Amino acid sequence: MENEIISLIYKDTDEGIKYLSALRDREESVQREVIVRVEEILKGIKDEGDDALIKYTNILDSDKVNKENICVTKEELEEAYKQVEGEFLEAIKLAAKNIRFFHEKQKKNSWMVTKEDGVILGQNIRALENVGIYVPGGTAAYPSSVLMNAIPAEVAGVDNIIMVTPPLKDGSINPNILVAADIAGVDKIYKAGGAQAIGALAFGTESIEKVDKVVGPGNMYVAMAKKSVYGYVDIDMIAGPSEIMVIADDSGKAEYIAADLMSQAEHDRLASAVLVTTSQKLAEKVRKELERQVKSLSRKDIIVDSLQNYGVIIVVDSLQEAIDMANKIAPEHLELCIKEPFRALGDIKNAGSIFLGDYAPEPLGDYLAGPNHVLPTSGTARFFSPLSVDDFVKKSSFIHYSKEALLEVGGKVVKLAETEGLTAHANSISIRMKSK
Amino acid sequence: MENEIISLIYKDTDEGIKYLSALRDREESVQREVIVRVEEILKGIKDEGDDALIKYTNILDSDKVNKENICVTKEELEEAYKQVEGEFLEAIKLAAKNIRFFHEKQKKNSWMVTKEDGVILGQNIRALENVGIYVPGGTAAYPSSVLMNAIPAEVAGVDNIIMVTPPLKDGSINPNILVAADIAGVDKIYKAGGAQAIGALAFGTESIEKVDKVVGPGNMYVAMAKKSVYGYVDIDMIAGPSEIMVIADDSGKAEYIAADLMSQAEHDRLASAVLVTTSQKLAEKVRKELERQVKSLSRKDIIVDSLQNYGVIIVVDSLQEAIDMANKIAPEHLELCIKEPFRALGDIKNAGSIFLGDYAPEPLGDYLAGPNHVLPTSGTARFFSPLSVDDFVKKSSFIHYSKEALLEVGGKVVKLAETEGLTAHANSISIRMKSK
Repeated sequence: MENEIISLIYKDTDEGIKYLSALRDREESVQREVIVRVEEILKGIKDEGDDALIKYTNILDSDKVNKENICVTKEELEEAYKQVEGEFLEAIKLAAKNIRFFHEKQKKNSWMVTKEDGVILGQNIRALENVGIYVPGGTAAYPSSVLMNAIPAEVAGVDNIIMVTPPLKDGSINPNILVAADIAGVDKIYKAGGAQAIGALAFGTESIEKVDKVVGPGNMYVAMAKKSVYGYVDIDMIAGPSEIMVIADDSGKAEYIAADLMSQAEHDRLASAVLVTTSQKLAEKVRKELERQVKSLSRKDIIVDSLQNYGVIIVVDSLQEAIDMANKIAPEHLELCIKEPFRALGDIKNAGSIFLGDYAPEPLGDYLAGPNHVLPTSGTARFFSPLSVDDFVKKSSFIHYSKEALLEVGGKVVKLAETEGLTAHANSISIRMKSK
Repeated sequence: MENEIISLIYKDTDEGIKYLSALRDREESVQREVIVRVEEILKGIKDEGDDALIKYTNILDSDKVNKENICVTKEELEEAYKQVEGEFLEAIKLAAKNIRFFHEKQKKNSWMVTKEDGVILGQNIRALENVGIYVPGGTAAYPSSVLMNAIPAEVAGVDNIIMVTPPLKDGSINPNILVAADIAGVDKIYKAGGAQAIGALAFGTESIEKVDKVVGPGNMYVAMAKKSVYGYVDIDMIAGPSEIMVIADDSGKAEYIAADLMSQAEHDRLASAVLVTTSQKLAEKVRKELERQVKSLSRKDIIVDSLQNYGVIIVVDSLQEAIDMANKIAPEHLELCIKEPFRALGDIKNAGSIFLGDYAPEPLGDYLAGPNHVLPTSGTARFFSPLSVDDFVKKSSFIHYSKEALLEVGGKVVKLAETEGLTAHANSISIRMKSK
């Protein structure tokens, strides 16, 4: 087994579930030093604002950034457009269009109902006013991530979308990121990264406005900083390593499935790729395909590592067994490479995003189909949801009663308040009943 | 000023906002011992399950509870119905009906859209499977809180609603709580409280099933335990002390407003009650009413303490100024005791629940009107929302593409993946394009 590219569990459901459950614990443990350092940086930003922000940026990212040039100018943006490839620009525009289309469908209206006696009840749904989006820089500069985080906020109607991203050594920002931000409707871009950028968004500095919510992926420092400021501001989920489960019957195409498993595995060495299939023949074929295809891929080492450590093929007796396994594990991405994928859709209880059929490979969803690629990981799809317009709105209830309506039910409110021993609550009602 | 029941700030907006902002910091600080103790209890539950749960329950709440009687029986429930007052039963049933009515309006359907070339996109919206509701026991036994936490879960369609509540010394549970739970659609009730009950819900024990989400208020141990298990399971907000802001013009009735301010102030010594008014005359009258009414209220000492420490009346020049203040502070409860409350509704950006006019006092919303009384505190209404059906569902996206649709856009996906250096992502698309 040692040298195989991926392990194979043959018709042993318990063993399969045990293996999959163990994958849940593959998070990196956070070192004490990181927490201490993050708290120190956050305190610096809270106390000293821009001074601290510039100081940390100069030390950690670029000594070319100062208070005057920390905000990306219109000219820098125009320059970025000149630098990006035409083909990239076209692709990112189509992606933005599709993402906008899908997220527009998520918008909800405020609503109210009127009842007898002049009772009016309802809920105002409003966009958050200010949102901060963190975008990692350097090697992991992902324009797709800019679109996926900013467009739902823009569609929700957020007034002020502020992006922060660490500058390169020379003080510049990757032009692909800048162009994506512009297309996604970002209002302001700042050259700041790490815990210091999260602190600036949460507490505000002279340059960067305080926001209501911070979203976007980042390294361990960013994740810890987000966790720490939660409550001052809202945050999105802290994402764990990426994962895919493919469910396939004998109609599954080994070539495609192997490619899709590796598209997750290439993310990082902690990524997990799992195939659950009713076909032993397919299982063997996929293993061969993995070995064949991996050779030509640039991130081969990462892929082999992650497949060997966190990949598995499980052969099961029935499709139902495979679906039960998915529901138990609640994978971030779930591909249904089976004859009738839509028929199974109703049985999938827990999954972040579901890919139906042979021509909806997971990378299509990562970039271009329209649904969000920010998804719940590590089994949290049991209770968390993909990033959506809902994450950028807040609700307020409202209540109006006429005098008659209140007198009608007043006695019951008084009874409930008295039962709970809250006499001032009761008094607020009975004082209105007395003056009738 | 020292002896006044509430301070008054006269036409000094800056001073007013400064005062109100300072109220934000009235949370109790959590002692290090509490955190250590909570972690110890949680570890006990995780490692030893029921044994630890019973052990802690015996030490902390009642030595009458054991593995056999920890789950409330049908007989105990029937007995509770015999014990509660008829008038209370009637009131709680009406409250449940109104809460159900309002929350039914919040339900969302799964949806899908079909596009050209056989593209199908959508979002499944499903209820969480298992939800745990924490209900404090002892002196603060609030049946209204049972309804407000359980009914949204029931309306969402949660399969299994599990309630935990600390038993009284004799091993029993307050019958009002039991009856409220039954009416709200709770499926199982366990005699367990504190951090140990939260641990049991989050990790599962032999008696208590692991849930997907834990909601409900509790003391500092409960709050810390919820914070600690967040991620294993979802949780609701950790609520801060309660607060009300009343905005009134010269049409405001001093008698009512004073009563409403005190209905918040009676919650605890950290509660905050604020009146912002354009009428100095009203301000004076409200102060007198506070002094007059408080004398006859059973929780007088708490009310006076909280009004003196965290209450204030601010006189402003215009209604707009008052509304700006509310938007800045984002109060949990906001009463609009003004001539045309509906006209102002559109200007209120940040508030948990808004009470319109003279006959919608806050306690009406606490008990019976229908909207939820679990609301964002401490200014978090800028980004958090009242508890709702949305909190008990999860969403999964789904994507289906036809072969033609994928071939049409495949090149663009490949371009985006290559730009990000993710060649295995590109390979997953191009392998499908090659085999056309």
